Amino acid sequence: MTPVAVMGSGSWGTAFAKVLADAGADVTLWGRRAEVADEVNEAHTNTQYLPDIQLPQSIRATTDGEKALSDAEVVVLALPSQSLRGILGGLSPFVPADAAVVSLMKGVELGTTRRMSEVIVEVTDVAPARVAVLSGPNLAREIALCEPAASVVACTDRAVAERISDLCATSYFRPYTNVDVVGTELCGAVKNVIAIAVGMADGMGLGDNAKASIITRGLAETARLGTALGADPLTFLGLAGIGDLVATCMSPLSRNRTFGEGLGKGLTVAEVIAATKTTAEGVKSCTSILGLARHHGVDVPIIENVVAVVHEGASPAEIGRRLLSRALKAEAE
Amino acid sequence: MTPVAVMGSGSWGTAFAKVLADAGADVTLWGRRAEVADEVNEAHTNTQYLPDIQLPQSIRATTDGEKALSDAEVVVLALPSQSLRGILGGLSPFVPADAAVVSLMKGVELGTTRRMSEVIVEVTDVAPARVAVLSGPNLAREIALCEPAASVVACTDRAVAERISDLCATSYFRPYTNVDVVGTELCGAVKNVIAIAVGMADGMGLGDNAKASIITRGLAETARLGTALGADPLTFLGLAGIGDLVATCMSPLSRNRTFGEGLGKGLTVAEVIAATKTTAEGVKSCTSILGLARHHGVDVPIIENVVAVVHEGASPAEIGRRLLSRALKAEAE
Repeated sequence: MTPVAVMGSGSWGTAFAKVLADAGADVTLWGRRAEVADEVNEAHTNTQYLPDIQLPQSIRATTDGEKALSDAEVVVLALPSQSLRGILGGLSPFVPADAAVVSLMKGVELGTTRRMSEVIVEVTDVAPARVAVLSGPNLAREIALCEPAASVVACTDRAVAERISDLCATSYFRPYTNVDVVGTELCGAVKNVIAIAVGMADGMGLGDNAKASIITRGLAETARLGTALGADPLTFLGLAGIGDLVATCMSPLSRNRTFGEGLGKGLTVAEVIAATKTTAEGVKSCTSILGLARHHGVDVPIIENVVAVVHEGASPAEIGRRLLSRALKAEAE
Repeated sequence: MTPVAVMGSGSWGTAFAKVLADAGADVTLWGRRAEVADEVNEAHTNTQYLPDIQLPQSIRATTDGEKALSDAEVVVLALPSQSLRGILGGLSPFVPADAAVVSLMKGVELGTTRRMSEVIVEVTDVAPARVAVLSGPNLAREIALCEPAASVVACTDRAVAERISDLCATSYFRPYTNVDVVGTELCGAVKNVIAIAVGMADGMGLGDNAKASIITRGLAETARLGTALGADPLTFLGLAGIGDLVATCMSPLSRNRTFGEGLGKGLTVAEVIAATKTTAEGVKSCTSILGLARHHGVDVPIIENVVAVVHEGASPAEIGRRLLSRALKAEAE
């Protein structure tokens, strides 16, 4: 049994720990909150993040990073994107240099515009060819319920991607490998921002024709940016691209879509945060993704408009109209 | 004012007649049922197909094909795909040879595997370069409600596409032109079949992760077939491709999706037809599209599985599992 450390006991970290345990790995789940670790160890549940889900008894939880990491052959990171550098900085002395590291995170770091895999390489001694990213249409709750899903494991070293893929394949979870780390990672990050835009359209009462247009143009925008960064255009057509974007935009549960819906209904960012008691990842990443796009001279009007509402006080209704107008206009480009 | 004949007074024909009238065209709406024509002329409504929608008073309706067509500079065809050859055969003596013809139809003819634009050219004296197709994320009811939408007008002669585009552009409906008739037309036809597959997944209680995977693989399948037929791959990434597919699969109202949902719940085809009092277009076209794919040696597993359920008595549950398995497996191809 391969010893795996899953760092982060939120909903996706916990659900993926279950996938790994169901696939036969020896899983230690690390989180900072003792009450979560205790609940996982004693009741085999994590009710705050995955209510009504029974976790495998084989998963051990701990708040001790050294204990979780010291024997790990594979380290899975499911931390908040903007906290990755800080948290991983504290843990990095314990990350075995020959471990493979898998990022489940979907964001781009503020300030540095680094992708998560780049932050991992900067903060740890792990070689880039041992860092993989996993991304796809993977709503955590459905996976925790053993509903069927597929995903992409990308690593520049295909052998590493295949090893990770073998490690997490179950009857309900099918990973596929590719070598396009940049594209796979970017799909996940930009998707959160497009989901905010689609949520805004929902909140404004726009119909499925308009939302489908925003999704279409959002994917085109993602592919333009990705191609400029060296990604394989085919990645955007696959499970990590269209697949993840469509799953998120169809799901009433997506945090990013729900956040946008509040904005579309005319609430301020502060009001949405107060109502949902959470900040959606895209709210943070939209700024860094826009920075990345500007640095590479890529036009990303949907992302730009989300930034204008979320961080520059623009009126959601006005921006909603502008977003829609861009979405409807862009086929001619 | 350009005289336009809209042939077909179902929901999309009627909604598009409204778009044309709102854009300033002189519209005659033709249908075979006198009670529909009378209602359009007297009450300016078509309650069977577009309940609660007020139509422009300028739209005249008739059951007289010669009267509708004789002065038309543009002829819009919104007929049932499998009846096109028969109905248009009767009307073709009245179609002015110099008219432009616009197909709103999304199907492939049974027996001949001809696309709608090919049938039009065979049945009338209209030159191929004067036949355009219009396709996109265009749920008819939303458009009749003046909710914003965009669409693609494709014609091998771009000047004709631009003329049609100018003729139907309104504040709420934005047409964009391209020259890829094959790709645009194929997107619309195959979409109906993929929507049946997604509906089956819905009916079987599968989640958004699984449905998003079927949508992703369905688009890949459409693109493979289209490329073999000479289409531009970029068409599948645009409004007529992803856009239309996503709008249809998100909408609870789509007939094809709803039809599949019934099958996924275990109803037979006959039972679904009895319950919905209608046959979804994809039920007919799936066979001809599969024929087209086989003729060109293209692998289309999702379409094949829909045909197996709809026409070969395969168990929806078994096929549902197979569909899903293919959708989850296919990234590796």
